[in-house]
Amino acid sequence: MNLTTLETPCLILDKKKLKNNIQRISKRMATLGVNLRPHGKSAKNIDAMRMALEGQEGGITVSTLKEAEYYFEQGIKDIVYAVGIAPVKLPRILRLIKQGAEITLLLDSTQQVRFVAEAAVKEGITLPVLIELDCDGHRSGVTLEDDSLIAIGTLLHETQGVSLKGVLTHAGESYQCRSTEAMTAMAEQERSCAVACAEALRHAGLPCPVVSVGSTPTANFAEDLSGVTEVRAGVYMFYDLVMAGLGVCREEDIAVSVLASVIGHQKRKGWVITDAGWMALSRDRGTAAQPIDQGYGRVCGVDGAPLKDLIVSGANQEHGIVSDRNGEAISWESCDIGTLVRILPNHACATSAMYDRYHVVDASEEIVDTWYRVNGW
Amino acid sequence: MNLTTLETPCLILDKKKLKNNIQRISKRMATLGVNLRPHGKSAKNIDAMRMALEGQEGGITVSTLKEAEYYFEQGIKDIVYAVGIAPVKLPRILRLIKQGAEITLLLDSTQQVRFVAEAAVKEGITLPVLIELDCDGHRSGVTLEDDSLIAIGTLLHETQGVSLKGVLTHAGESYQCRSTEAMTAMAEQERSCAVACAEALRHAGLPCPVVSVGSTPTANFAEDLSGVTEVRAGVYMFYDLVMAGLGVCREEDIAVSVLASVIGHQKRKGWVITDAGWMALSRDRGTAAQPIDQGYGRVCGVDGAPLKDLIVSGANQEHGIVSDRNGEAISWESCDIGTLVRILPNHACATSAMYDRYHVVDASEEIVDTWYRVNGW
Repeated sequence: MNLTTLETPCLILDKKKLKNNIQRISKRMATLGVNLRPHGKSAKNIDAMRMALEGQEGGITVSTLKEAEYYFEQGIKDIVYAVGIAPVKLPRILRLIKQGAEITLLLDSTQQVRFVAEAAVKEGITLPVLIELDCDGHRSGVTLEDDSLIAIGTLLHETQGVSLKGVLTHAGESYQCRSTEAMTAMAEQERSCAVACAEALRHAGLPCPVVSVGSTPTANFAEDLSGVTEVRAGVYMFYDLVMAGLGVCREEDIAVSVLASVIGHQKRKGWVITDAGWMALSRDRGTAAQPIDQGYGRVCGVDGAPLKDLIVSGANQEHGIVSDRNGEAISWESCDIGTLVRILPNHACATSAMYDRYHVVDASEEIVDTWYRVNGW
Repeated sequence: MNLTTLETPCLILDKKKLKNNIQRISKRMATLGVNLRPHGKSAKNIDAMRMALEGQEGGITVSTLKEAEYYFEQGIKDIVYAVGIAPVKLPRILRLIKQGAEITLLLDSTQQVRFVAEAAVKEGITLPVLIELDCDGHRSGVTLEDDSLIAIGTLLHETQGVSLKGVLTHAGESYQCRSTEAMTAMAEQERSCAVACAEALRHAGLPCPVVSVGSTPTANFAEDLSGVTEVRAGVYMFYDLVMAGLGVCREEDIAVSVLASVIGHQKRKGWVITDAGWMALSRDRGTAAQPIDQGYGRVCGVDGAPLKDLIVSGANQEHGIVSDRNGEAISWESCDIGTLVRILPNHACATSAMYDRYHVVDASEEIVDTWYRVNGW
């Protein structure tokens, strides 16, 4: 079975690239002396996560309760649910805990402490909780300057049903960095924010064993992680064009691609039409704001090698429009109808989410496995 | 069971709005004297399609073979697969035809005629084919000026295994129109292109019984459809913010919404954080180029009524950032953690694709049904 036997569009995962990407970050984290807590939101698959957990202590991060349930069923117990908690999520979390999962929650308000504690007390359990920190203005979390940091910490420490486990932050703004220096600086900003907040809690007499930071760019460029106990990252397993555009990886490190068929030509316009539209590629246009705009994806041959400067310049639901970025002529004889191409995604998490499985190859065009994804909530 | 019993994020479909939207276009088409061939790519669900087929002759349009197989299993025989054909798609199509489906193919090259005919002859069948026309430079298709129109038509007519059924076009550029007049003009451009090509084929002695046009904007604004035999449209069933921004529908006609929970606040910034990020809303930013940019969606209360000028101004994978479009203060007491909101999508097809089911309500907050979607390929 090789790629030519597959129906298009479908999702291809190169196991050799996946392994290289995983080993590179695992080694970095070992050198920096911190545990890696891989994020299950990118792969949404146990095989990839098992590879990522090699040499680590075993904990993972998730973005949905469906991921938590799936990974727990597959034998992973130590799970951080890294999205702020709402009451509607508690019944499933409590059910998982009763089954033996060790779920750590995230919150950034005293209101959340109260309803989490109330639910836990009813079940006769204690829920470990991390306080979410805002290190870069990206989305949620409290800052060192907020009075609420100590207030939340104190309430967590003093309230039955919850226990203060530490702090967590995510430098999401690292995706907006435009240089290696900016990413290194962002990694230090992420680290120093988390460490300062942990120290403020300890200074107030509160425990803070866990200091959790992470994003793929900062994991790649952090030079010092003193005071940090764990790093979370997910998309580093696959990488994508946004990460390549940032300089976090090379285009040839990208482990996922969409296999598509040529279904037509508009020769006067220099367009090749494929069956991979935005439904197959996602609507993510993450490279639009980068120096090199890759459209809806970079077009490669079935062997994975880039084809000149071809990109997916436009996308309808089930149609992709491929053209040369610089307006160079298309070599029409090489893209007959039925020709297979592989398209590198802007954002691996978004593109992979359009599929229920990976067709796994191992540095060749031979399919060696099928790995399923846990989509939804 | 009402909306408060659901876990978030999830997809809500208002059956009453769906019915109204369907009836409005069905009546328009009846008045204009053409059959409606609803497109199954938006709903991807048989219940919605059965409503859309009421009063019609029964044919539908699909964008994937998975849709074709699903709708056929549900009893619909007459199916146009409205994406240019590639060899890899033929085995499944031939299998469906042997089971009794009447699948019509689409193509725009003589190369496609040849491989389709060859496959059909091997199976001892004849495949009906439409020639794809390019009426607006949007993507695929031949024009009246192309020599290939008559060449493809002649080859289809003279080759064993295929039969020339007619012409098909889609005015995809109608989504870029900025006024009612522009959409009316685009509808006439779509019609006149299709009719002129049909007449050119007939003038060359070729049959052309089917003249198929369609898009939701042109279906709404066509004033005359003389010479057209059928109109295809899909998103008119649900509508969305892009269509409302075009003036094709009102915001209150939008039948699908994403139910989300408030999971946090960033009060200094005027942000409400919800659990509906881009995974729940899609990455579609179709209103970004419109006069009113709706971000990742318009925020309503659980009753479906818009909340002031709140939009989803930013989205991470599982976090949505809600803020006031005009920077007005948020009424914090109305959006406590756990509060439910409903978010209207930019693009109903893209947002619905992130879910495997609709929770169906009927002009209230009571859930009356669960309808499943056929995603994938």
